[in-house]
Amino acid sequence: MTALYYEEFEVGRTIEHEKRRTVSESDNQRFCDMTMNQQPLHLDAEFAADSQFGERLVNGLYTMSLAVGLSVPDTTDGTIVANLSYDDVSHPNPVFHGDTLRAQTTVLDKRETSDGERGVVTMKVEAFNQDDDLVCEFERTALSLKREFAADADDA
Amino acid sequence: MTALYYEEFEVGRTIEHEKRRTVSESDNQRFCDMTMNQQPLHLDAEFAADSQFGERLVNGLYTMSLAVGLSVPDTTDGTIVANLSYDDVSHPNPVFHGDTLRAQTTVLDKRETSDGERGVVTMKVEAFNQDDDLVCEFERTALSLKREFAADADDA
Repeated sequence: MTALYYEEFEVGRTIEHEKRRTVSESDNQRFCDMTMNQQPLHLDAEFAADSQFGERLVNGLYTMSLAVGLSVPDTTDGTIVANLSYDDVSHPNPVFHGDTLRAQTTVLDKRETSDGERGVVTMKVEAFNQDDDLVCEFERTALSLKREFAADADDA
Repeated sequence: MTALYYEEFEVGRTIEHEKRRTVSESDNQRFCDMTMNQQPLHLDAEFAADSQFGERLVNGLYTMSLAVGLSVPDTTDGTIVANLSYDDVSHPNPVFHGDTLRAQTTVLDKRETSDGERGVVTMKVEAFNQDDDLVCEFERTALSLKREFAADADDA
């Protein structure tokens, strides 16, 4: 287990996530299929050629979801109760087929729940392409397990 | 084209989207695979059996992304420039394998861009399961084409 229990999150720390992914045409198509999103800007090369971007855009929710996935091993893998919210999700630059994305997480805030048994952690997640252009950023707030009580559960 | 140009969004209107989807174990697994999200709460039945939920949870970003996909035909199919932001994304109730989700969109606000050639539309998107439990809600802000200028482009 390499992810973090509540006690281990350090406010102000930035974690650069190791895994990256080159986003393919297939990724974009499958994501749109699975989410029943038939937006032509993502799927129709001829339509997209006439848009301001000149080619198909990768679905922004794929970029966001991939950024979370890349961050899980270092943040919440097996140590989370639930994601409480995502806020201020934006895509400052487009993602195209063939781009390689990486992500980093900065811990913004943490507080214990009123019963002291869990904790709420707010993180800023950022995704970048191979040219270091910021392609997605958002805040992620998670309800995290405390190691103390997780250990109790293991003993039960 | 059944989606809406900027001029056609009516503040206060709620649109119930026709298509629904029964979320399968395969959907959840493939979504986690594609987004490199190996959270055991989504993928490990034995781990999840010991969690407060008692079984695997569907990845919340799949629920969010599906809600957007279900809403596209009635809102932004072919009439969008880009999604500007998603805000206050929350998952008030869990989604489990086999749940059937539907979505609705309420238009919260609209304003023209400073050059008057496009418009910014803010919508509230809500997803519900087969028992009408709210399983995801968020605000979606999109930069939309105006029919006037889209028509000009067609004539060019």
